[in-house]
Amino acid sequence: MSFDANNFRDVDPGERVLMGPGPSDVPVRVLRAMSAPCIGHLDPVFLSIMDETQRLLRFLFQTENALTIPVSGTGSAGMETCFVNLVEPGDEVVVCVNGVFGTRMSDIVNRLGGKLIRVDAEWGKTIDPDAVRQAVKGKHPKVLAVVHAETSTGVCQPLGDLCTIAKESGALFLVDMVTSLAGMEVGLDRMGIDAAYSGTQKCISCPPGLSPISFSAAAMEALKNRKSPVASWYLDMSMVSSYWGADRKYHHTAPINMIYALREALRIIAEEGLEARFARHLLNHRALVAGIEAMGLSMLVAEGERLPMLNAIRIPEGADDLKVRKALLNDFGMEIGGGLGALAGKIWRVGLMGHTSRRRNVFLFLSALETILKAQAVDVRPVALEAASSIY
Amino acid sequence: MSFDANNFRDVDPGERVLMGPGPSDVPVRVLRAMSAPCIGHLDPVFLSIMDETQRLLRFLFQTENALTIPVSGTGSAGMETCFVNLVEPGDEVVVCVNGVFGTRMSDIVNRLGGKLIRVDAEWGKTIDPDAVRQAVKGKHPKVLAVVHAETSTGVCQPLGDLCTIAKESGALFLVDMVTSLAGMEVGLDRMGIDAAYSGTQKCISCPPGLSPISFSAAAMEALKNRKSPVASWYLDMSMVSSYWGADRKYHHTAPINMIYALREALRIIAEEGLEARFARHLLNHRALVAGIEAMGLSMLVAEGERLPMLNAIRIPEGADDLKVRKALLNDFGMEIGGGLGALAGKIWRVGLMGHTSRRRNVFLFLSALETILKAQAVDVRPVALEAASSIY
Repeated sequence: MSFDANNFRDVDPGERVLMGPGPSDVPVRVLRAMSAPCIGHLDPVFLSIMDETQRLLRFLFQTENALTIPVSGTGSAGMETCFVNLVEPGDEVVVCVNGVFGTRMSDIVNRLGGKLIRVDAEWGKTIDPDAVRQAVKGKHPKVLAVVHAETSTGVCQPLGDLCTIAKESGALFLVDMVTSLAGMEVGLDRMGIDAAYSGTQKCISCPPGLSPISFSAAAMEALKNRKSPVASWYLDMSMVSSYWGADRKYHHTAPINMIYALREALRIIAEEGLEARFARHLLNHRALVAGIEAMGLSMLVAEGERLPMLNAIRIPEGADDLKVRKALLNDFGMEIGGGLGALAGKIWRVGLMGHTSRRRNVFLFLSALETILKAQAVDVRPVALEAASSIY
Repeated sequence: MSFDANNFRDVDPGERVLMGPGPSDVPVRVLRAMSAPCIGHLDPVFLSIMDETQRLLRFLFQTENALTIPVSGTGSAGMETCFVNLVEPGDEVVVCVNGVFGTRMSDIVNRLGGKLIRVDAEWGKTIDPDAVRQAVKGKHPKVLAVVHAETSTGVCQPLGDLCTIAKESGALFLVDMVTSLAGMEVGLDRMGIDAAYSGTQKCISCPPGLSPISFSAAAMEALKNRKSPVASWYLDMSMVSSYWGADRKYHHTAPINMIYALREALRIIAEEGLEARFARHLLNHRALVAGIEAMGLSMLVAEGERLPMLNAIRIPEGADDLKVRKALLNDFGMEIGGGLGALAGKIWRVGLMGHTSRRRNVFLFLSALETILKAQAVDVRPVALEAASSIY
């Protein structure tokens, strides 16, 4: 097989501003930490890096849970980890669906042979706790699962009522925090959440590749009491937890350099402080919305139900979705996301996650969007920057 | 929760020489590529990086298989990917077991509800094709699986006869190449292998976190003809292949920076050339063995059945396994591996994988080991370096 190695150049991804639904911009400190020399997964130096990473993750989740670790895969691997460990064939599982990620949860429950009890809400709306209460009546669900921050729509799901319903019905409360963690309050222990997973590439601002998860004592108990083996060897937390726990029993080779990166990203979060970080996300979100509405555009999600880190903007009449996104990418180096499923062509998804959530990015996006829409002869009012400025 | 971010310092893993069973030393070029800015998983620039990575992987596997991609997890995720996609509940699966990784395959087959047909050989010996022929008699296995390079013992399994048996019995031939790929000939298409997986942290010399896999047309056909859904959503190749193929359909967020690193590691391999790389692995292995035997120590595996990249050395009488490995790590910064399972305390596993496979590492290891064993009053002959030198 002839093959010319000279056909390949140095990797050069350019310098994007990542304002899509993830990944978000990664601080230089994180990239530098990631490129430290690789060492062994059982090296005492690496074991102490693991310990520190766990302490930082517990701080971020606001939990004392022993099993609080980064799963060796991206956010969807974290989702699968939670379900594959907690659900056995025949178990009743309530899944709340109001977007792509609730749909994905349902798919996973079906693959595992769980009995799916699905509670739907319109995409762009929150789940109604009464509908969930109705659905669990007379049932004995093992798990009640919901997405905290629906990245496909920008909806923020209040967790309090659903958590109460889970406890009342004896179910473990499982929450998708892929997009919310590190951008808004999650307070695992305070809320009484039993299992949660996230991704590194959203508000944590670390490259994709790991999925932080946390299991409560009740979740660990459910895992211990399983009648059947966990369907996945790779994601079996009864074994993985031995490697991350005191035993240090080899399971699989940890993604060493990704864990360096995560540790550094978490350290940056700890330096900023959670409250300051959440306030920053909220402030930049408010400025973006002020600018968007001043321009004459509107948000998909009702005020009060919006996520601070993921903004779903209705595409105005006359605007060409693809052309706008291409112009943002090619002329301004900015990535934003399009709509998924039924929302394709109807919304733009603009992320202000982690390191991306900065005033300069809000201003750059508003000014670039105004320029591009004008060029497409879309009627926009030229007061976006003034409105955004008034928020700061 | 009070938390002091000042308790954490910059990551500083030091400069180990990685001569264990993996990870191996990572070239600076790879670390540098990995720390390039993160961009989106649907960015056109990243899509072309994916294409290049696939071309390089096909070159390395020596295959034309369309589905040749890095799975978003470490080597064990690659193992699980192959079985979870190709095995349905009730399928007969032959697994050859002569070490830890064959045992792991069996575990996975059981979790998937496959009917396991297990063929065992003593750890440290190869699998006898006649035993496999005997085991499949009258059976209709869907898959015949074997480990090419048993990292737990250092045994190299010849694949020719087993491949013939697989074809004759109508089974897909599945091969674990975690440790062999990029260190010795694998020739996927020439051999007629249907599914193979590897890890990035062995002879590819990229940090751990990805698992290159390749499926033949027959394997893809088997996947298409499944009666039940793939048990894992995350590893479902019918969906993942859409993202890596022409559709570019979003499945999960790819581990962007890890793929930069893999691409660069593969590019280095292509620059060296496969034949030169394999010859280098063999040469350094021969020098190490010459030195070890001149010292008066012996290898676990018989000559002719040894792997070039993983050397299992019998621990000599009087030597303290743990103390020797600690001295290597603390006084010389070198990591080697201990034995696993029944071989714990009986062998050392010394890796000469990828970038680690260099004359200077062979010399450093032999001289360090001699010094440490002498300090433990183990009787060793002082001619290891002379013997090793004679090979170069």
